[in-house]
Amino acid sequence: MANTDRIRLGMVGGGNDAFIGGVHRIASRIDDRFELVAGALSSTPEKSQASGKALGLPRIHDDFQQMAAAEAAREDGIEAVSIVTPNHMHFAAASAFLAHGIHVICDKPLTSSSEDAAAMANAVNDSSGLFILTHNYTGYPMIRQAKAMIEAGALGDIRIIQAEYPQDWLNTPVEREGLKQAEWRTDPKRSGAGGSIGDIGTHAHNLACFVTGLSVESLCADLHTFGAGRTLDDNAHIMLRFGGGARGMLWSSQVAPGNENALKLRVYGSEGGLSWNQEDPNYLWFTPQGQATQLLTRAGPGANDAAGAVSRIPAGHPEGYLEGFATIYTEAADAIRAVQSGTSRETAMGLLPGIKQGLDGMSFIHACVESSASDSRWVTL
Amino acid sequence: MANTDRIRLGMVGGGNDAFIGGVHRIASRIDDRFELVAGALSSTPEKSQASGKALGLPRIHDDFQQMAAAEAAREDGIEAVSIVTPNHMHFAAASAFLAHGIHVICDKPLTSSSEDAAAMANAVNDSSGLFILTHNYTGYPMIRQAKAMIEAGALGDIRIIQAEYPQDWLNTPVEREGLKQAEWRTDPKRSGAGGSIGDIGTHAHNLACFVTGLSVESLCADLHTFGAGRTLDDNAHIMLRFGGGARGMLWSSQVAPGNENALKLRVYGSEGGLSWNQEDPNYLWFTPQGQATQLLTRAGPGANDAAGAVSRIPAGHPEGYLEGFATIYTEAADAIRAVQSGTSRETAMGLLPGIKQGLDGMSFIHACVESSASDSRWVTL
Amino acid sequence: MANTDRIRLGMVGGGNDAFIGGVHRIASRIDDRFELVAGALSSTPEKSQASGKALGLPRIHDDFQQMAAAEAAREDGIEAVSIVTPNHMHFAAASAFLAHGIHVICDKPLTSSSEDAAAMANAVNDSSGLFILTHNYTGYPMIRQAKAMIEAGALGDIRIIQAEYPQDWLNTPVEREGLKQAEWRTDPKRSGAGGSIGDIGTHAHNLACFVTGLSVESLCADLHTFGAGRTLDDNAHIMLRFGGGARGMLWSSQVAPGNENALKLRVYGSEGGLSWNQEDPNYLWFTPQGQATQLLTRAGPGANDAAGAVSRIPAGHPEGYLEGFATIYTEAADAIRAVQSGTSRETAMGLLPGIKQGLDGMSFIHACVESSASDSRWVTL
Amino acid sequence: MANTDRIRLGMVGGGNDAFIGGVHRIASRIDDRFELVAGALSSTPEKSQASGKALGLPRIHDDFQQMAAAEAAREDGIEAVSIVTPNHMHFAAASAFLAHGIHVICDKPLTSSSEDAAAMANAVNDSSGLFILTHNYTGYPMIRQAKAMIEAGALGDIRIIQAEYPQDWLNTPVEREGLKQAEWRTDPKRSGAGGSIGDIGTHAHNLACFVTGLSVESLCADLHTFGAGRTLDDNAHIMLRFGGGARGMLWSSQVAPGNENALKLRVYGSEGGLSWNQEDPNYLWFTPQGQATQLLTRAGPGANDAAGAVSRIPAGHPEGYLEGFATIYTEAADAIRAVQSGTSRETAMGLLPGIKQGLDGMSFIHACVESSASDSRWVTL
Repeated sequence: MANTDRIRLGMVGGGNDAFIGGVHRIASRIDDRFELVAGALSSTPEKSQASGKALGLPRIHDDFQQMAAAEAAREDGIEAVSIVTPNHMHFAAASAFLAHGIHVICDKPLTSSSEDAAAMANAVNDSSGLFILTHNYTGYPMIRQAKAMIEAGALGDIRIIQAEYPQDWLNTPVEREGLKQAEWRTDPKRSGAGGSIGDIGTHAHNLACFVTGLSVESLCADLHTFGAGRTLDDNAHIMLRFGGGARGMLWSSQVAPGNENALKLRVYGSEGGLSWNQEDPNYLWFTPQGQATQLLTRAGPGANDAAGAVSRIPAGHPEGYLEGFATIYTEAADAIRAVQSGTSRETAMGLLPGIKQGLDGMSFIHACVESSASDSRWVTL
Repeated sequence: MANTDRIRLGMVGGGNDAFIGGVHRIASRIDDRFELVAGALSSTPEKSQASGKALGLPRIHDDFQQMAAAEAAREDGIEAVSIVTPNHMHFAAASAFLAHGIHVICDKPLTSSSEDAAAMANAVNDSSGLFILTHNYTGYPMIRQAKAMIEAGALGDIRIIQAEYPQDWLNTPVEREGLKQAEWRTDPKRSGAGGSIGDIGTHAHNLACFVTGLSVESLCADLHTFGAGRTLDDNAHIMLRFGGGARGMLWSSQVAPGNENALKLRVYGSEGGLSWNQEDPNYLWFTPQGQATQLLTRAGPGANDAAGAVSRIPAGHPEGYLEGFATIYTEAADAIRAVQSGTSRETAMGLLPGIKQGLDGMSFIHACVESSASDSRWVTL
Repeated sequence: MANTDRIRLGMVGGGNDAFIGGVHRIASRIDDRFELVAGALSSTPEKSQASGKALGLPRIHDDFQQMAAAEAAREDGIEAVSIVTPNHMHFAAASAFLAHGIHVICDKPLTSSSEDAAAMANAVNDSSGLFILTHNYTGYPMIRQAKAMIEAGALGDIRIIQAEYPQDWLNTPVEREGLKQAEWRTDPKRSGAGGSIGDIGTHAHNLACFVTGLSVESLCADLHTFGAGRTLDDNAHIMLRFGGGARGMLWSSQVAPGNENALKLRVYGSEGGLSWNQEDPNYLWFTPQGQATQLLTRAGPGANDAAGAVSRIPAGHPEGYLEGFATIYTEAADAIRAVQSGTSRETAMGLLPGIKQGLDGMSFIHACVESSASDSRWVTL
Repeated sequence: MANTDRIRLGMVGGGNDAFIGGVHRIASRIDDRFELVAGALSSTPEKSQASGKALGLPRIHDDFQQMAAAEAAREDGIEAVSIVTPNHMHFAAASAFLAHGIHVICDKPLTSSSEDAAAMANAVNDSSGLFILTHNYTGYPMIRQAKAMIEAGALGDIRIIQAEYPQDWLNTPVEREGLKQAEWRTDPKRSGAGGSIGDIGTHAHNLACFVTGLSVESLCADLHTFGAGRTLDDNAHIMLRFGGGARGMLWSSQVAPGNENALKLRVYGSEGGLSWNQEDPNYLWFTPQGQATQLLTRAGPGANDAAGAVSRIPAGHPEGYLEGFATIYTEAADAIRAVQSGTSRETAMGLLPGIKQGLDGMSFIHACVESSASDSRWVTL
């Protein structure tokens, strides 16, 4: 992948304090396929300027309408835009760019109301732009593997689908304690009709359908609100009937202590079963009917082409290895800037490994070789 | 972090087929602190040109000597360079840049011989540049947490340190079957005196010292080669005595089937114990003396500031979440380029979630709300 | 516990090929509180005689009616009886003994029909005998611990109860292939109205109620039969509403490949969460609201008196340790009988450890001490 | 197995406060192959009488010499004896019974001194009795399975054997706080030359040899004592060389917080690897070279005849299931004795499930069926 061909990207939302905007930006850089060149990151022109400057954005716009018009008018304007606002603004923002044929990458859920959803469908239909919804859990290698296995018949006829997505961060009334993430998620005006079901249940629903290739035909639900003063559900129990005869359950909750982000999917068929857990995403448990359960790992033996196509690193290096590695690089950047500003080398290095650790490693290797070569006597380093 | 302040980075090594060069490049992008602008990526000028062009590098050099001179002479020359060659070239390449005061980020182990190691120490000493060795496992949040806990006395006096790093990829003679990664690692000319002990044992050694703050004072080793025709160890058993009285064991192996990259560290002291496993890096198991074992998670309750300082995402979103997210972005880039080249939208979308999935999600939310509001009757979607 | 005070026990059902009868017999011996002295183990007098003789029963009866009368008439007659027949015979057998004031230990579920259940309640009411139903999963130490923790308020107000009991042994039509266990469980005449829901769902239901102290007030169910030709459910999805406002889900299945006997219970409240899995019964995961998750182990730190009261062995010795130990004893019995019959000692010992292993162990200890005392030189054994 | 053929068993040691004596007694009962009829359970005649009476032993002897003579003289005397004293008494006690041809089941390690060990070998040699050493961990089904798999060549040539047995109960000086178990284990007069290495290292050593069929040829050890005032090792690091060329490590420790009884064995060969952990004894992890890791379960698919021969219950019912079941029986015995003594039925039942739970279960089944049959409407119980 050559970075001479990076796609010019804009962003709407994702200013200071926003969680998902930063995630979108990192995600867009990992494979070096995008270059973020413009944005309207916050709800007022002043905040947008401040957030945009903090990120060093080349072009900072006051709002998304102005941004859509201005970028569309430039020859080197953005080719795509990420919409990372609260749900109730998805439609207005996305449709502004779609109208100009600019491709849209939009956070889920689609919108906060059915009316907006229908309008969004029309806007997509009328545009030449792509509309991509970031149901990001479909991007995990072992989810791709599971989907491919099911398509290839590894489970036979799908019978049972158990999906769950419990969290615990709303078990106390944090929306009344100033947590912005909680405020808009518990506000029906900004989130829409679904609480936990819209915020995370849609991920579980999407993942179940993505992996199995099946659609929900009907459902029977029991939504409930445990948090005092809340109007939207913070816990949902749902029974599902899928096309083709499969049955399932879906549980979403944001009040289940001990569950950080425990999205889990289990699929059972006439010929076998699969189990996957987002918190340990490199593993896929596969039981062929009547045989021992196998632990399939990303890039390990048994990993298929679908997993391989989206794997960046070898087996045993968990997704996350790259981030630990990145921390070394980022601290190196800090250290380099520090010495350039006159900080001493020793101070600048901080926790970074350097020549001392290198020499220690060499001594270690040679001591090992020397000890082993002398019938394992103790060698002093 | 503003990307107007990115550090200009060069790279030596890391051309086609190299594993670790690509890892360094991704790691340098994740936090947007570096910009790769120059390289001498391969062993011949022709290959370097080809590899550099494939990456879209602005400045492609024939070899590292020429690169060091040329970059040092430019006002906008590189500020730092990544050395990602086989071990035996580390010294020559690193010293060429250090001589110009260019900061060096070098893959481990330091060098392939003790002579080179000593010369490298001198080169670092004589330079104004930083020398950073990528003992990348020290970058994991829970490793930082463990180090900080031990410094704060959570384990009392350290008594026992059990480090192990088993792999299985050399259990068959893949170095004779054309696997480049295996060829140079089993060749003493390119790797030095240590086989598994140099390649991965040094990581385990470094990690044990990093986390505990202790140094190995003496060791007693039994290196062995199981693979026919090999001269370097592919399995190493080592007993360790640390400064301060702690005792330990270190096992490195590349012939242990079922171990992909199973770096594991356990530390025990008078007041408690810690256990960490690189393949599940978001977890740190902590047992305070006489109390129940606690599962500490990156960014969860119990995570300390040291972990927080290097965490990018909330609890329960494993390191790796960003990579799954990145896959969606990368496939979006592919899709955008495809429609720009005339591919139909439907074809271009491939596995990407889009408006259909968004509408499905909205239907799902509204069906849940409707069913729940009607005493949980079945609602058809 | 003195074995001079063992309770005289009889058994109805549990002849050759029966699974649960053997379990009851072993369970009754572990703490040496019962002595099995009489039985009517099979459906015909001939089979009862054969099964009784195979077990060396002192008194073998033709059927349970005759047994109840005869035992009640003896001064040293049985004090208690275990009913381990298929469900449809529970009432007739149990009531025959209750009528004589003989205590009844009965396998679950209670009966196969509502009429029998009501009659059983009357029989218990009219008798001086105890009626004990073997919901055996309530006997696990960590289940007792969980119940006591909830009673003590460790979870605050109970909000969510997720119970599941998947198995996979009916995923193929084994009831048509001669498996007796499957035949009667899939036969409504012998099992009653519930398939998986009666066989295992009742265990999950009972466990949820036992641990939380709550009762199910209403439920909403979707039972389904995946196995061709079956009339009873082999998969059940149920939503639950408990007294006091808690909500829950229960899933029972016998067609979920990869699940052997995966009974699992999770309980969440305003102040914390608990999770327990029958296949790893020595562990209880506890998350106090806002704190790190703790791994509580049977007899480990954090185990409470309720767990301690039903623990036989120290922490880290899993339940099952006693059975591994018993295997050594049982093989010792075989070996003793074999040498008594003229088999050579060497042959009789089989896999049993003996003097050779003892001497090996002594050599090992002394070699360790000698090596360590001589600066860790290699010592030959 | 008919209990008319039970072996008459005696016991030496195992009085009040002893841990392992009770384990031996339960183990001897589980399969109903022994009947405990005589004992000299403590170090003085008075204590022996008290302990024997508490157990209801038919014949209580003052000491083991008198017991051996008296039992040998009876026609119905004991056929076998369990020796469960501290290590230093093993030889004297065992040889007294061997001299009469009485079979001996002896706790490990063999003796506390090399002299006693040699004398024990002679005593065994001169006797017609069997000598069985309770290396009980060899009795686990998945250990039998592992041994059989290795014999059948599933791992190819054995290369690496990693054994470890860490505990944490001696991390504080409990031997000075009145804990009898700790007192004799840290006393060289009663334990012999090995501390952790004798108490638990011998188990790890025995298990490694049992499973692989190999013997240790030489070793290189570093024993250490961390606990102040101790003379015997409480931590041992050992490198091993086995016959046939395999290399290994063994770690035993009693000062590693967080490890309750964490005996673990890993074996790697040219064709695959195996891993087993005593705290989760029903699982055996198997990696055939180049294939996905399989989770083999006791009695599940992939379990072999060697495991099946020592399994009492089906897959998914962990070893320990029988003990949970036994708790119900034992509480039933308590309840029966209580009502016989005039306690009310309600009080006597305590936590035991009874008719109420049975009726609840029936209501549950019928509510499920009714709800499901009425398009999943909520049904009140």
